[in-house]
Amino acid sequence: MASPGSGFWPFGADEGSAAAESPGTARAWCQAAQKLTGGLGNKLCALLYGDAEKPVETGAKAAPGAAEPRPVCTCDKKPCGCQKADVNYAFLHSTDLLPACNGEITTMSFLQDVVDILLQYVVKSFDRSTKVIDFHYPNELLQEYNWELADQPQTLEEILLNCRTTLKYAIKTGHPRYFNQLSTGLDMVGLAADWLTSAANTNMFTYEIAPVFVLLEYVTLRKMREMVGWPGGCGDGIFSPGGAISNMYAMLIARFKMFPEVKEKGMAAIPRLVAFTSEHSHFSVKKGAAALGIGTDSVILIRCDERGKMIPSDLERRILEAKQKGFVPFLVSATAGTTVYGAFDPLIAIADICKKYKIWMHVDGAWGGGLLMSRKHKWKLNGVERANSVTWNPHKMMGVPLQCSALLVREEGLMQSCNQMHASYLFQQDKHYDLSYDTGDKALQCGRHVDVFKLWLMWRAKGTTGFEAQIDKCLELAEYLYNKIKNREGYEMVFDGKPQHTNVCFWYIPPSLRSMEDNEERMSRLMKVAPVIKARMMEYGTTMVSYQPLGDKVNFFRMVISNPAATHQDIDFLIDEIERLGQDL
Amino acid sequence: MASPGSGFWPFGADEGSAAAESPGTARAWCQAAQKLTGGLGNKLCALLYGDAEKPVETGAKAAPGAAEPRPVCTCDKKPCGCQKADVNYAFLHSTDLLPACNGEITTMSFLQDVVDILLQYVVKSFDRSTKVIDFHYPNELLQEYNWELADQPQTLEEILLNCRTTLKYAIKTGHPRYFNQLSTGLDMVGLAADWLTSAANTNMFTYEIAPVFVLLEYVTLRKMREMVGWPGGCGDGIFSPGGAISNMYAMLIARFKMFPEVKEKGMAAIPRLVAFTSEHSHFSVKKGAAALGIGTDSVILIRCDERGKMIPSDLERRILEAKQKGFVPFLVSATAGTTVYGAFDPLIAIADICKKYKIWMHVDGAWGGGLLMSRKHKWKLNGVERANSVTWNPHKMMGVPLQCSALLVREEGLMQSCNQMHASYLFQQDKHYDLSYDTGDKALQCGRHVDVFKLWLMWRAKGTTGFEAQIDKCLELAEYLYNKIKNREGYEMVFDGKPQHTNVCFWYIPPSLRSMEDNEERMSRLMKVAPVIKARMMEYGTTMVSYQPLGDKVNFFRMVISNPAATHQDIDFLIDEIERLGQDL
Repeated sequence: MASPGSGFWPFGADEGSAAAESPGTARAWCQAAQKLTGGLGNKLCALLYGDAEKPVETGAKAAPGAAEPRPVCTCDKKPCGCQKADVNYAFLHSTDLLPACNGEITTMSFLQDVVDILLQYVVKSFDRSTKVIDFHYPNELLQEYNWELADQPQTLEEILLNCRTTLKYAIKTGHPRYFNQLSTGLDMVGLAADWLTSAANTNMFTYEIAPVFVLLEYVTLRKMREMVGWPGGCGDGIFSPGGAISNMYAMLIARFKMFPEVKEKGMAAIPRLVAFTSEHSHFSVKKGAAALGIGTDSVILIRCDERGKMIPSDLERRILEAKQKGFVPFLVSATAGTTVYGAFDPLIAIADICKKYKIWMHVDGAWGGGLLMSRKHKWKLNGVERANSVTWNPHKMMGVPLQCSALLVREEGLMQSCNQMHASYLFQQDKHYDLSYDTGDKALQCGRHVDVFKLWLMWRAKGTTGFEAQIDKCLELAEYLYNKIKNREGYEMVFDGKPQHTNVCFWYIPPSLRSMEDNEERMSRLMKVAPVIKARMMEYGTTMVSYQPLGDKVNFFRMVISNPAATHQDIDFLIDEIERLGQDL
Repeated sequence: MASPGSGFWPFGADEGSAAAESPGTARAWCQAAQKLTGGLGNKLCALLYGDAEKPVETGAKAAPGAAEPRPVCTCDKKPCGCQKADVNYAFLHSTDLLPACNGEITTMSFLQDVVDILLQYVVKSFDRSTKVIDFHYPNELLQEYNWELADQPQTLEEILLNCRTTLKYAIKTGHPRYFNQLSTGLDMVGLAADWLTSAANTNMFTYEIAPVFVLLEYVTLRKMREMVGWPGGCGDGIFSPGGAISNMYAMLIARFKMFPEVKEKGMAAIPRLVAFTSEHSHFSVKKGAAALGIGTDSVILIRCDERGKMIPSDLERRILEAKQKGFVPFLVSATAGTTVYGAFDPLIAIADICKKYKIWMHVDGAWGGGLLMSRKHKWKLNGVERANSVTWNPHKMMGVPLQCSALLVREEGLMQSCNQMHASYLFQQDKHYDLSYDTGDKALQCGRHVDVFKLWLMWRAKGTTGFEAQIDKCLELAEYLYNKIKNREGYEMVFDGKPQHTNVCFWYIPPSLRSMEDNEERMSRLMKVAPVIKARMMEYGTTMVSYQPLGDKVNFFRMVISNPAATHQDIDFLIDEIERLGQDL
């Protein structure tokens, strides 16, 4: 199959040159279009030529410092955008944009020009013939352009140039060969929703100033709780700025549930708490414990099996041990989809233990929660319905633009009791509408960005079945990769067996290491292979995939697939590229 | 002065009707334009007519379920967008958008149509003849439209309708008469920057995946530290999801600086800490103390003078008292710009006390920090350069789109030591570039949204002097309001004297209360005045301003001006509106 983008896009790989060479036909159209009144011809030409080239046959030039485009538009449809091509940004500043008096046309033109730059970037992001990254070292990049902030304003022309330059050096995270993080891809409906969110520019703390978004959060969280398996979608929750904060919320609420006096009196007034999570869990559990005054020493890491799943018998042993020492176990954070191996902890066995010892069960499904959308794969989270709280990041496996992370809590009202401070200047109690829709006092944040709209709109556009298809496809691709390399010469798998999530962990063994004995020298050479290949990938800009050491395992590649743009051919490309870049090592 | 928008925009106040009636001239152009080849005429007509009306003389209709617009474009400039008007969204789904094979044209058309909706919304936001809000009670709004999430996908036509409906019920936060929060206004360059940020869709944790944005954060934080007055802009910092989290960071770092063992061992291992802040300070100080395991009882509220400024002698007295009880004072959180009164605590006197008792001095300048941009007003923050940490929210007084909050820390490296967890899968130590640019391990968050670009681009566009002019104008308007009502019949000021920030706090006294004695009955009636006027404002949708009680003071209006679109006439309008809506109470 030919890659969809190849051959379609006539521009070079360099994003700095936003304007392509103008084909003769377009020039001819442009000349014909000039005969139209009202500046329509100019508008047309600008669309054809981009910003860098001015339309032909237009004598008008904006006077220095002029706030208004000339000649004045005579069409009677406002805003018409007719004169976009006449706006000379070299003489305009941000003060010429709205709310400037009569700033409508300049504003529309300027925003449209930014959008044209963005549309070019977006379309190019999906084109396999462009680079994922135009890599520069930090010092190079600092010197490449003047990024400094000054006293005096820049012109709008310079602002448009800043936008182009920024995108030139950005990573194309929507590129079909960008596999570097758990969050990859660029969803078009999600992007549109994020643009709308920016234009609405509001804050989630009250219904008063975010009526629709507050209701959409309500609707969406209820739906997510339904998918978790809580009857009727009952419970509570919030969208938070990322999985680490969601996990911290869970820890905070679990502590409050057991010792509500901690809110006023602090940790000094309660027994020493301990939390449990697996040795493969995300570092945010420890980070949260440090922040909340619990301390990282009180996070006990439970052993995992060779696939990275928590061993329930070890959990129970460590709980008993802690209790014997007089500590109070208050939280088990199970992981549904670990960061490196993509492992799912055995939630049913863990739920049994939590029930037995009356411990809050949290499931960190930041990465794996998306599988709840798939009838084929959701069994991997069996037992999640018994959790007290669940972290689920739609910005990972569901491809929602960053950030979008939900914390779901089974018991309603607990978040509010735990976090409320009754600020009368924000949460007035004598307002004229139902105050239960004011969500701000249950949050740790005061102001809170609208993260829900992009998820809601994508869900409307795809339906649950659309998310399911997208996720199933990514898992199928991971299996394809696994099957392709498990017996291939030059590869060693980090763990045996089919991947449970889209994480495929492997070493590439360059020819020079293949016949070596498995000794320390080989390890120390193998350790350097992935970093060098990765550095070369970035310098060529062809693809990006992550690597890391883990425990006694030296640097290995962790391939993850959450990018809906990826195909079998992209997986083939990745393998070819690793071999091309690593064969001499 | 006539309001810039009035009479310009021919559409009604109802955003649902996106298409205006087509003027005859436009129709004539449209027919002429049809003669152009390559679908250009259609494009032109669509621009003129909006989405709701199809262009004339186009016989082509998309077949049911067709993923491709017809007729096929023959122009040789890609992407051309020529065929926007031919795309029949009723038969298209999100699966027809990129990364769909040959999805470029459909994608460009769809995103352009979303942008057209947004541009209309943006321009209308500044038009005083439109409502600030089309208010509906939560239950009404839930019933007004089907917001539910389903298994099956919606068409792109329905998605565009969802966007229009969402905006119909949204608050126009950029409206010149929206004064409800500390964050108001809609900056056009900020909006453009936020759109770019969404298209780049990346994460701040490493230079690897956000090279430009990481450098811009570095440049911008350094500049902000310079403005605070730290030599050479040295120090540390981070953009966090809001002022409450920034304040929590400060508390976390202050605690770690004094007792680094708290990270591993928790609060159980260290003495009982106490923090000090004024009774007018933001609730996030207490919220942070609750979360960090310090407890709200350990936040000692210092008395304020009648203008809402912390009384330094009371601070010193309470510090000594706490020490006598054996507690350890670890943090003073001074406020530069309180939420309700806009008061600036006396930072120099507080700095002296902090120095004397070796306590971390934090300045919560979430609201007042913006005044550092103004040569005329920055003296109000004199002493801020002696702080150990500063919260400063550019999304408030500087009008940057939500969210944009910076925490600045004087000592470099402390944030990293405090928060780092050395996750090897994210912060590999053998990468090929300078790792000091990987910011993720000093954050509480793992994934972190790019909040810096909108501030950086606005700063480039305005220059420091542009921010200064914008801020000075808001303060001048606040003074205008103060002068207008201080001696006006029917008004009482909550505190005497010129406002220090843009907060103007006052009661409106309806005629029926003006001759009443100052007794309990009058208080109980006055208490209800502001809520009723506010409810009426929202129902009419003409303006929005906040009210609250404070201490023994019953509900009063807190007017704040951070909206660059506001003019003297808008202040006049607000006063007229309060009197119109409140005269019968």
